Amino acid sequence: MVKSELVRPGAGVAELAEALIACPSVTPATGLVFDCLEEMLAPLGFAIHRAVVGEAPDGPVENLFAIRQGPQGSRHFAYAGHVDVVPPGEGWSSAPFAPERRGELLYGRGAVDMKGSIAAFVAALRDIPAEAGTISLIITGDEEGAATFGTVKIIDHMREAGINPDLILVGEPTSVHRLGDMIKVGRRGSVNMWIEVEGQQGHVAYPHLADNPITRLVAMLSELKAIKLDEGTDWFQPSNLEVTDISCGNPATNVIPHKAAARISIRFNDLHTGESLSKLVREIGAKHGASVRPVISGEAFLTPPGEFSAIVVDAIRAETGLDTEISTSGGTSDARFLKALAPVIEFGLCNATMHKKDEAVAIPDLETLSRIYARIVLAGLKRA
Amino acid sequence: MVKSELVRPGAGVAELAEALIACPSVTPATGLVFDCLEEMLAPLGFAIHRAVVGEAPDGPVENLFAIRQGPQGSRHFAYAGHVDVVPPGEGWSSAPFAPERRGELLYGRGAVDMKGSIAAFVAALRDIPAEAGTISLIITGDEEGAATFGTVKIIDHMREAGINPDLILVGEPTSVHRLGDMIKVGRRGSVNMWIEVEGQQGHVAYPHLADNPITRLVAMLSELKAIKLDEGTDWFQPSNLEVTDISCGNPATNVIPHKAAARISIRFNDLHTGESLSKLVREIGAKHGASVRPVISGEAFLTPPGEFSAIVVDAIRAETGLDTEISTSGGTSDARFLKALAPVIEFGLCNATMHKKDEAVAIPDLETLSRIYARIVLAGLKRA
Ligand SMILES: [Zn+2]
Ligand SMILES: [Zn+2]
Repeated sequence: MVKSELVRPGAGVAELAEALIACPSVTPATGLVFDCLEEMLAPLGFAIHRAVVGEAPDGPVENLFAIRQGPQGSRHFAYAGHVDVVPPGEGWSSAPFAPERRGELLYGRGAVDMKGSIAAFVAALRDIPAEAGTISLIITGDEEGAATFGTVKIIDHMREAGINPDLILVGEPTSVHRLGDMIKVGRRGSVNMWIEVEGQQGHVAYPHLADNPITRLVAMLSELKAIKLDEGTDWFQPSNLEVTDISCGNPATNVIPHKAAARISIRFNDLHTGESLSKLVREIGAKHGASVRPVISGEAFLTPPGEFSAIVVDAIRAETGLDTEISTSGGTSDARFLKALAPVIEFGLCNATMHKKDEAVAIPDLETLSRIYARIVLAGLKRA
Repeated sequence: MVKSELVRPGAGVAELAEALIACPSVTPATGLVFDCLEEMLAPLGFAIHRAVVGEAPDGPVENLFAIRQGPQGSRHFAYAGHVDVVPPGEGWSSAPFAPERRGELLYGRGAVDMKGSIAAFVAALRDIPAEAGTISLIITGDEEGAATFGTVKIIDHMREAGINPDLILVGEPTSVHRLGDMIKVGRRGSVNMWIEVEGQQGHVAYPHLADNPITRLVAMLSELKAIKLDEGTDWFQPSNLEVTDISCGNPATNVIPHKAAARISIRFNDLHTGESLSKLVREIGAKHGASVRPVISGEAFLTPPGEFSAIVVDAIRAETGLDTEISTSGGTSDARFLKALAPVIEFGLCNATMHKKDEAVAIPDLETLSRIYARIVLAGLKRA
């Protein structure tokens, strides 16, 4: 299936990153960027499964699952990531899909999120003998988009094939100021809810003949904001509810409108689920005559700090000397899906330029990250 | 100044109404409809002052002040009204500016609001000798619109001329089910306020780095709705505050917006003024970081029931046998301006079809109203 020479044999980690960046892959991604990755993995003894799934608007999407079996009974370490990137936008100093080195920085869309991480992991694989254990890569072409046909479809494939990793490392850019200063052992869940209140239109001079939906909506939103969802946990900050929009659209100063609406966003820790919060808001809405339409973006996940996080922390310390912060902050990632398979931790490059123009990675960071990944994989495969 | 024969000499009250309706006069009105009214009043001995004032968008507007002086030292009774009408809209059974009798109903825009009332007053004048006292008509071409260049400009003219009536009857359609069942001795005031809260935009995942303006707006609106402005008075229902619009316009589910807005409408009794309420809402707004822009549509007015209302009540009972309800309900009228000159009471036709398609008046009501008006004027001029 390898179609062309996209990657120089024996390429360094920066060259691997350049090869991936040179394949344009705005979300949802298919084709070339997967050819490139396949070309890297095939020589390393990986069996590769690729599939294009889904239709517009959320598809088609390409996904890749690569696996190299270790000896019978060995442990299975999986790396998860995505080759799709957010649209480059305007104002770049160089072409976003023409990787360019300037000093020790490598510029290009996806440099840190997360083609650089994939390159670092691929480079690390060269130093890990097949006898060390089973290794797999779970790579989607749709993490930045709807994710309807992305990682969830690879998980389906793995389940059908009876493949179950013991540990999963997600290569998202979790570092903040210096490579290795932060890893994520959890992410909050996220749910948006569209709230609508219907009342009875009327004239402001005759409020008793009308039923002002804004009055009821304001009372409901007040009640929602007054709720303390929780106090936070050992590993999570408190869950938080924000009203992100309100609307009515009544141009007439003397008219009580017939309908009003709002949208809320809840970021929640593992004390809640999208479903439990939907139920709570619906119950409050019922008191105020409001309808509530929830859309759950992702459930919370937590890999409680322990053996796996210790492996990652130790590997980072060995290569950088840094004391990593173990965090659960920030938005959602595909770890929300992968948590169903095995303990998941996220660790990758510095995220300062992700999703921005002039996205760039420090080439020494790519090399350091590759060495850290190798340590994590080897230690992860060793544990009983 | 009389330009043509718009009115048949000796026309009955319905014919007078037809003549006025036949002059299209969507607000703001000028010209023909005033010619028509002048043609009615000049033969009755009235001195007529007409003026076109103001520019777009609220003008030009025509106003008319007509006065017939009584004997030295006699009392002065004024009638106030408007010849402008609201746009006819769609769906009429007959042309809105071509008056049409069907059975005992006379159809046409302005039939009840308030060309019919003006016709009734003009007809009443024929039975009132000049010796009875001074009579004037305060007629604007802009009551239904912005009213910027309407009645207030006539009041300016009267003040400059040193003219001060003792009583003012406004001919607005105050009757509800039957002619004479309700008069208004007061109206609530009205103020609209535009509220805006600026916050700090941010990502919902990092609320501590943002400042959600919706949270503050909801808190402010809750506080406003919790205020009991008053318990009502002997003559007024309690003042009332309605939120008539809310807006934000944030399309992004994961973004805390930077600005949110609302509009409120307060209908208030004579325990408040537009200014006192603006101050109250501004003080509450300051606590929530909100800016408040009030626009006062009109202050409350009250002519406490007494001599004047007794005259009107008695006149109605004499002609209809009805026990009139003395009310202060409903929206604002130009009485809010006229109250500065003298005690004001409003009484006119049934308002069921006002501002609607197929606006119509019962011709017998026109005749009865004319007789009631004659009684009111005669009694009003008699009192010491
Ligand atoms: Zn990413
Ligand atoms: Zn009117």
